[in-house]
Amino acid sequence: MPLSVRGVIPPVTTPFKADGSLDYEALGRNLTKWRTTGLAGYLILGSTGEFLTLSADERRTMLEVARAHIPREQIMIAGAGAESTPQAIQYVKEAVRAGADAVMVVNPNYYKPLLTAEALYRHYVAVAEASEVPVFLYNVPQFTGLNMDAALVSRLAAHPNIVGIKDSSGNIPQLAEIIRNAPADFLVFPGSAQVVLPALALGAAGAILQISCFVPELCVRLVKEWDAGNIEAARKTNNLLLAMHEAIGKYGVPASKAAMDLRGYYGGPARPPLLPPSPEQVAGFRAALEAAGQL
Amino acid sequence: MPLSVRGVIPPVTTPFKADGSLDYEALGRNLTKWRTTGLAGYLILGSTGEFLTLSADERRTMLEVARAHIPREQIMIAGAGAESTPQAIQYVKEAVRAGADAVMVVNPNYYKPLLTAEALYRHYVAVAEASEVPVFLYNVPQFTGLNMDAALVSRLAAHPNIVGIKDSSGNIPQLAEIIRNAPADFLVFPGSAQVVLPALALGAAGAILQISCFVPELCVRLVKEWDAGNIEAARKTNNLLLAMHEAIGKYGVPASKAAMDLRGYYGGPARPPLLPPSPEQVAGFRAALEAAGQL
Amino acid sequence: MPLSVRGVIPPVTTPFKADGSLDYEALGRNLTKWRTTGLAGYLILGSTGEFLTLSADERRTMLEVARAHIPREQIMIAGAGAESTPQAIQYVKEAVRAGADAVMVVNPNYYKPLLTAEALYRHYVAVAEASEVPVFLYNVPQFTGLNMDAALVSRLAAHPNIVGIKDSSGNIPQLAEIIRNAPADFLVFPGSAQVVLPALALGAAGAILQISCFVPELCVRLVKEWDAGNIEAARKTNNLLLAMHEAIGKYGVPASKAAMDLRGYYGGPARPPLLPPSPEQVAGFRAALEAAGQL
Amino acid sequence: MPLSVRGVIPPVTTPFKADGSLDYEALGRNLTKWRTTGLAGYLILGSTGEFLTLSADERRTMLEVARAHIPREQIMIAGAGAESTPQAIQYVKEAVRAGADAVMVVNPNYYKPLLTAEALYRHYVAVAEASEVPVFLYNVPQFTGLNMDAALVSRLAAHPNIVGIKDSSGNIPQLAEIIRNAPADFLVFPGSAQVVLPALALGAAGAILQISCFVPELCVRLVKEWDAGNIEAARKTNNLLLAMHEAIGKYGVPASKAAMDLRGYYGGPARPPLLPPSPEQVAGFRAALEAAGQL
Repeated sequence: MPLSVRGVIPPVTTPFKADGSLDYEALGRNLTKWRTTGLAGYLILGSTGEFLTLSADERRTMLEVARAHIPREQIMIAGAGAESTPQAIQYVKEAVRAGADAVMVVNPNYYKPLLTAEALYRHYVAVAEASEVPVFLYNVPQFTGLNMDAALVSRLAAHPNIVGIKDSSGNIPQLAEIIRNAPADFLVFPGSAQVVLPALALGAAGAILQISCFVPELCVRLVKEWDAGNIEAARKTNNLLLAMHEAIGKYGVPASKAAMDLRGYYGGPARPPLLPPSPEQVAGFRAALEAAGQL
Repeated sequence: MPLSVRGVIPPVTTPFKADGSLDYEALGRNLTKWRTTGLAGYLILGSTGEFLTLSADERRTMLEVARAHIPREQIMIAGAGAESTPQAIQYVKEAVRAGADAVMVVNPNYYKPLLTAEALYRHYVAVAEASEVPVFLYNVPQFTGLNMDAALVSRLAAHPNIVGIKDSSGNIPQLAEIIRNAPADFLVFPGSAQVVLPALALGAAGAILQISCFVPELCVRLVKEWDAGNIEAARKTNNLLLAMHEAIGKYGVPASKAAMDLRGYYGGPARPPLLPPSPEQVAGFRAALEAAGQL
Repeated sequence: MPLSVRGVIPPVTTPFKADGSLDYEALGRNLTKWRTTGLAGYLILGSTGEFLTLSADERRTMLEVARAHIPREQIMIAGAGAESTPQAIQYVKEAVRAGADAVMVVNPNYYKPLLTAEALYRHYVAVAEASEVPVFLYNVPQFTGLNMDAALVSRLAAHPNIVGIKDSSGNIPQLAEIIRNAPADFLVFPGSAQVVLPALALGAAGAILQISCFVPELCVRLVKEWDAGNIEAARKTNNLLLAMHEAIGKYGVPASKAAMDLRGYYGGPARPPLLPPSPEQVAGFRAALEAAGQL
Repeated sequence: MPLSVRGVIPPVTTPFKADGSLDYEALGRNLTKWRTTGLAGYLILGSTGEFLTLSADERRTMLEVARAHIPREQIMIAGAGAESTPQAIQYVKEAVRAGADAVMVVNPNYYKPLLTAEALYRHYVAVAEASEVPVFLYNVPQFTGLNMDAALVSRLAAHPNIVGIKDSSGNIPQLAEIIRNAPADFLVFPGSAQVVLPALALGAAGAILQISCFVPELCVRLVKEWDAGNIEAARKTNNLLLAMHEAIGKYGVPASKAAMDLRGYYGGPARPPLLPPSPEQVAGFRAALEAAGQL
């Protein structure tokens, strides 16, 4: 049941073969392997899923294959953002058809000066009204170049079909204000490995973390330690997450895919123009994983 | 012949009916009316053309209808940017098939921290190698949140199939450096009404201006006055362009479409979530057009 | 003993009379009243102390009067930053002469492009070498326009006479990296009310907070609740701090001085060009203090 | 007579001996040498003059020595900005006493969120009312971190004792708006070598340029060529200015002082923490000066 989810959710990578085509078998194997790690659910077609590079066919295949490997009792969230409101609604409908339990909608962001709080408010309300499943907001200013502030999010959090947010800004003052002003059951997931422990202290529901694609156990452990009131242990685990972010996560999708390869998942290449990591970088990823006891 | 174009090019708006569907007859009428104003060519599927909201069918229709109304001796440039290199190349091929004389390729911009100068360089070289028509770069940091600096542009300007740039940054130091370092025939078009006269002073080839959708005559006049060495007249006309920008252009596509309606073109609505101007705003647009002698 | 300080430190306001001159008697009364609230020490001549508007005489008077009212067993930290290294060293010497237990040195910030990590590193080492008392770094990018990042701070934290930092950025990823990389006894004080609880979760030594000038009891209570492992109570108190920040603190020195007046301290006017709050604003401050049970 | 000045004004460097003390004889020699180059006047105690590092005595000495070497018929402008309004007025009075013909007042900038347009407006009006000589605004957001926009400047330009602005932002849209809205005799001086030619095209009164400390002849030539209607020659000279900026000017005061040394002026060291250029950098400055025909 989506609305009570707590824990760590990976933004699932989209596996490509060497020729650039979708490797749906690799997706199945990854999901099977993740299932043993204590993750709370899965996000398909997020930023880490390179959603903006996928064709309509590839998007549908990703959702259908993922759903076939994700137990019904675990939440599958589907990315469904677009620059126009009608297109976003279309994506939501396709996601529901493919079995998504919820959708995650990144804000339109191209026409920045025109995308006022009022324009974004109306966009999200229109999407939420049209959606048969609960809607998560998705704020990722480092990619969109457009921050959704606490005032806008608080206003949207009052809508009954908007149930939470992934906020990847790393902006803790903003997260604190959102949590303070939203209904108590509004689900706030930080999307940055750097702020998981602080966000838990404020009352976050868990985290949606790129690094959980390759070190899910560490991320799950942090939430468990916090929930058990074991602050000292949580700080130590948090330092491992910070180290994973500094050494690998901050270099984005190609780095995280390389780290997945090192840990027995299928990472594979990212789509151009994203550049693959150099052999030296990969050696650094390996060293960092070893130092964190993950290899 | 594309490579010697000089003058003003409008980024053609995509006309929608009240129901949101494409109004290709309105496009034809607009192009017919623009033909009498001295414009030097046309850009289809640019930012002003709301390209990110169009389906594959709508993109193709826009290009084909436009080509049918643009004389062969006038340049038709087609927007062809995408987040992935293969998708951008695909768009270029479709544009050429529809009759484009050149393409204008906005840089990928979502994965900002990963889109280094080297990644963008390789992207553009791959596109330029694959394109049968000349390629224009397109830098619009106010929308993409990612500036292409003079060093990157200068490096790309050396490629034989990259013939120019539309730079909408309004950043004159950057334009000056680009012009200083590029081959003499590299075509620099500012995309901001606020810097046309300064850019001409530095050696720009003209301008690609949203306000030229509704006041093409003013924009054309400025270039003519400058070319005739009539600096005082050019300054006065430039002040009218500044006034048009301040009163209308800076409010973006919906405002420019409303101003087109006022001036006898078909503007119509922009796609949501872009908000329509209020009646009070439209009254302000009318007053500004009157004050500039355009109504 | 400075190096083991834990708790809340107010950045003491500089009281001015209506004619703009220093009101040193009001300073004495404020310090006497604060002494009953559980504060851990005092910062004189910080940003909240309007240090950049004070003459040499006024700086000295502030320090001497403050020292006369602060018990020797409580730490008095003196602001001592300047644009040039020799001037900063001069300020440090004067602060020590006036009885400061430690100094807090804001980074030079005017020649931003030239103030590289290397330039700032040398600046701080020179100051630390010349100082007879321990040195705190002070990072406040919202005022200086120049952030000192975790890499620079970590490098400086290794110096034996640099014992801590006040970081007012509100940037929790940065604080987390600083704490992870610095020696265990390096004292990190957030300077933003919005991140106190998250910073404590990461291991901060307390906080230096403008709002503690007018609601010291609330700020002290938060640290005590956290230290007692009472997370739920700490979250509730933290929400009161967030409310105080949103309603008063974020409007800066004039607002905080007005709130001090409301709570029985002497606030008085800030120096121009800082504008006084309007009567409507002051009414809002009063309402917020009442809602938080502080009036 | 100040109000009709046209041409190039150097922001005079403050010469220091190796021991850090003021070298007023070197100042005299520099001014004597500059006098033969066609400069239109002099700015003392600007950013290039390292005004924020000078003591009260050093400020006064700089102004008095400069006045003794600047003919009465040439304008001497004195920097007189401060964080507080009373301090700025005090600086203005001292500048007038030392013989300044006009003052240039950088905006207060530390308390950025509080320094609203209204606060800055009142600050400048108070200074202008108190000043016996004409006042220039000074906008340098790359140092202050706070831009004064066209709306604020246009409002201030209406004051009879505010006669012009040095705008070092390099922001040509802003300069264009200022010129369009200000009285015709309002003197706009760009402070960035990168925008001199574009600013002249818009109607600027000249320029105040750090690079004119070491290549005054080039800067003067550009203005003369423009005034003679010789656009092609002006573009070529402008490219030399751009090259001087790219190779030397953009590295700030220490680089410009080193270039002065190379060209027979006294540059000498900047005050710490500004770092001196390396020998390799100085070799690059020399090469650039030679390439521009200046050695």
